[in-house]
Order: sequence, then structure tokens, then C-alpha cells
Amino acid sequence: MSSPSAAVSTLTEPAVPEAFLALANRLADTSGALIRRHFRTPLDIDDKADDSPVTAADRGAEEAMRAVIAETFPDHGIIGEEFPAVNPDAEHVWVLDPIDGTKAFITGKPSFGTLIALLKNGRPWLGVIDQPILGERWIGAAGHGTTLNGTPAATRDIGRVDAAALYATAPEMFVGGDWPVFQRLYKGVKLPRYGADCYAYGLLASGFVDIVCEADLKLHDWAAVVPVVENAGGVVTDWTGAPLVKGADGHVLAAGGPQVHAAALRVLREG
Amino acid sequence: MSSPSAAVSTLTEPAVPEAFLALANRLADTSGALIRRHFRTPLDIDDKADDSPVTAADRGAEEAMRAVIAETFPDHGIIGEEFPAVNPDAEHVWVLDPIDGTKAFITGKPSFGTLIALLKNGRPWLGVIDQPILGERWIGAAGHGTTLNGTPAATRDIGRVDAAALYATAPEMFVGGDWPVFQRLYKGVKLPRYGADCYAYGLLASGFVDIVCEADLKLHDWAAVVPVVENAGGVVTDWTGAPLVKGADGHVLAAGGPQVHAAALRVLREG
Repeated sequence: MSSPSAAVSTLTEPAVPEAFLALANRLADTSGALIRRHFRTPLDIDDKADDSPVTAADRGAEEAMRAVIAETFPDHGIIGEEFPAVNPDAEHVWVLDPIDGTKAFITGKPSFGTLIALLKNGRPWLGVIDQPILGERWIGAAGHGTTLNGTPAATRDIGRVDAAALYATAPEMFVGGDWPVFQRLYKGVKLPRYGADCYAYGLLASGFVDIVCEADLKLHDWAAVVPVVENAGGVVTDWTGAPLVKGADGHVLAAGGPQVHAAALRVLREG
Repeated sequence: MSSPSAAVSTLTEPAVPEAFLALANRLADTSGALIRRHFRTPLDIDDKADDSPVTAADRGAEEAMRAVIAETFPDHGIIGEEFPAVNPDAEHVWVLDPIDGTKAFITGKPSFGTLIALLKNGRPWLGVIDQPILGERWIGAAGHGTTLNGTPAATRDIGRVDAAALYATAPEMFVGGDWPVFQRLYKGVKLPRYGADCYAYGLLASGFVDIVCEADLKLHDWAAVVPVVENAGGVVTDWTGAPLVKGADGHVLAAGGPQVHAAALRVLREG
């Protein structure tokens, strides 16, 4: 069964070259080694303007990844959470978030993840969700499927909302009119849960979670999850069913397949 | 600094004999081996009356632990989530919850835990929080302190609510009048998060989390966390500041020390 919302996806793109996959793995290795040294150690925690905690690990890992990219593909652009963008309108742009889930990280809970995406002309083309403490790495890329630690990962499409397991990071991400819309979906599923950060998208790619619905996300929060979910058989769009491309409004609806995605989208739109 | 709420605690009890600690470890080993075989495999999920999922791992692990207890200390009582109590008024009673966090378990997220407690005359005396996928085991027992994988664990007492990191499992546990009371605390802390199940109490025992505030808990949900938290330097009571003993009403306030506990209690009582 096909869905209009899946018409534009990484599945229609040319295969990602092996050299880019190799770099993505190297970036995750680089970041993970640094993050593991800081996990569960005392840290000075800065507050950014948006009050999210930023750690030494976050900044250090992004700097290290930026250096590897600049050395390997100097013409590629880089957009990261912690430092200014470099060549953000290049054909190939790497999007980096060393610690997605800084609140989990600073409370010692290994559900945070490192997000690494490669955009081609503004569209997610390759994505990595890496959990460096558990040693779990999901990679999805056009032409390569999605793998978890090298083994193919596949979503499940249970086809309905009322039997679904749903994750979102926290209630605080749904502000204003987003809250009642999200609550319809949260209350409509069988198993709703907060608190998995980007790890929830990995669990969805592996067929253990049916829906991840979030809001107020930045490019670096969602760019990597699109190829991971799509190349495992899932569907990811914004809350209107439109594809996620650079400039998207930060609403994300990921689901295990076109049927459950369409069903969830109907619930979001019913308001 | 002392607190009236800490006046009755496992710290005032005689030391737990080594034979009981050895049994607690053996029970966690037994349960963990069984749970690991079922994690992230397809399972038939029953719904109990209260609609929480019960898995083959949950029932199998509890049966296996019950057999070990009956063989080792046949005069000890057993209270478990899945099967009827045996000799529940004995001087020594083991309280078992093989999978606390079944929703995390069935969605493949390793934040669930195995909870094992030993009550002496109705009061928690020894507790285990075991995460069998991550290989993390907190054990707290009167006279022995609290350890994480054999290394001493210690809480932190930040002394105030507005700088605290707080966890609770899910909003659904706060019903009726509990919701506005909990919301005062949730909105008063610096870093509130849902979604860590019993693992949150382990993180508190290790000094990464300051407050865990929950409601609607059963004996098997809280009995094990009391010795783990108290013997690491923390304070655990109900929402009125009373000690948790068999028959407690299921409201739990755990904190990293007497000052932060007293501050959190004031917020709960202000209503």
C-alpha cells in the first residue's frame, strides 16, 4: 500500500557513495569516543539562551567531527548545534548534533544519542543515530537500507493508532495549539511514553515502536532520523504529511509504515 | 543535617547477613539471564486487569526466582507481582518485580529494571535494582551501604528544588488530586523528565538525579528502592514525609539528601 505522504523520500534518491558512509561511521566513532569519556563525570553545565544544558562533551564532539569533515571533504558544508554554520548552501551538507538528549546525558541516562545527517540539496540523504554508551548505531542511507550495528533493521506497520506504541521526548515540546493536537494522538494510542529522545526513532526503525510524534525540533534534531526511518520501511513527514526538507517547521510524525502513518496523520488533522 | 523524615530508615537496622545478600545477587542473576533471552524478541503480550503488559519474561523470571528462594530459605515469605503471595507475614519476606517498566521492555528500551527487596518485619531491609541489558546492578542493604556493580554509590544533596533534576515514570500515574500537587514540583525544578522507571532511583543513588516523585506505586514497585536510596545517602518517604512500610499508600518521594528532600516535601505540602 502506498501513501501520498511517502511520495518524496530518500527511497527515490540515488545511492549514497560508500565514501560518505565511511565518513559517517568515522564521525560517529570520533564523537562516541569523546562522549564516553565525559558520561557520568562531573561537568560544568552552561545554560544556553533556550536553557538546554550544554556540556563539554557536546562542544568537544562537534569540534572533533567538524575537523574530520573539513579534512576529508573540504567542499562539504556543516551545520551543527554548537557552532556557526560553514557553507550551509553547499550541495552536500553535514548536520551534527553530538548529544541529542542533553538532559538524559547529564542525568546519567543512556537514551541520548549522536545525530549525524548528510543533506543533498537540502534533503536528508544519509542518517546516523548512535548511542555511544550502549554501543548501538543505526545507519540509514539511500540505496543501502537501514542497519543496526550492521544488521538490517525493519519497521513494523500495525496499521492502526489504537494498537500503537508511541514515544515523544517530553510534554514541554508541545506549546500553544500543538498541545491539544498531540494529546489526541497520545490518548488515542495503546502505549504512550515520554522520555526516549532520538533513541525512540531507532526503536521505531527496528520495529519496536510504531509512532514518534514531536514538535519544536530543529534541523539537527530531525535530519538524521529521516533516512534511518525511511530506509527501514517507515514514513516520516511533518504534521501535515509534507516531506521534511531544510526549512521544515519542526513538527515531526514518524511511523512504522504508510498505513499507521496515514492513520496517525488523520488523528492529528481531526482538530 | 538531619531530618525528621529520615528518623526511621534502614540505616537504623542491624546489618543484613551476607547469606541474604548472596541470595539477592543470585536472584538477580537468575532473573537477568531469563529476561535477556526475551528482550527485543517477538512476545505474546497479555493484558492484565490494569492493562499493563505482561510478558513471558516477567512470569518466567518471577517463577525462577520463587523457586530459588523456596529452596534456599523455605521459611521466608514471597510477594510478587505475577503470582499469589506465599507466607506474606513472615519475619523475612522477599518482594519481587522482575520487569518494572514493562512498557519500556516491550518497546525495546533498556530503562526497565528488576526489583528485588527483602522486608524484615514489614520494613525494607535490602534492595536490588538490576538492569540486565546494560549490566548495571544497584544493591543497598542495612550495614552495607549501596553499591553499583560493587563500587560504592553516593547521592548528592543540592539542597534546593529549583536546581534539581527530577524524574517520574509517566504523567498517567498522577490521578485526581495528585496531579496538581505533582505539577507544582515538576514545574518547580530545573530539569524535569519522564520516562526512566525504576532506573531513575538508581541514577539518584549514584548522584545524577536529585528527586524522584511518583504515585500509584505498589509494594513491589517501591520496596527495593528504599534501601538502595537510603544506604547511598538519600531519603525516601511518602508524600507526607512518613517512612515507607508495608501498607504505605503508594506515593513516593525520593531525594538525594535530607535538605533537598525537605525542600521537595514543602512544595508537595503547599497546596
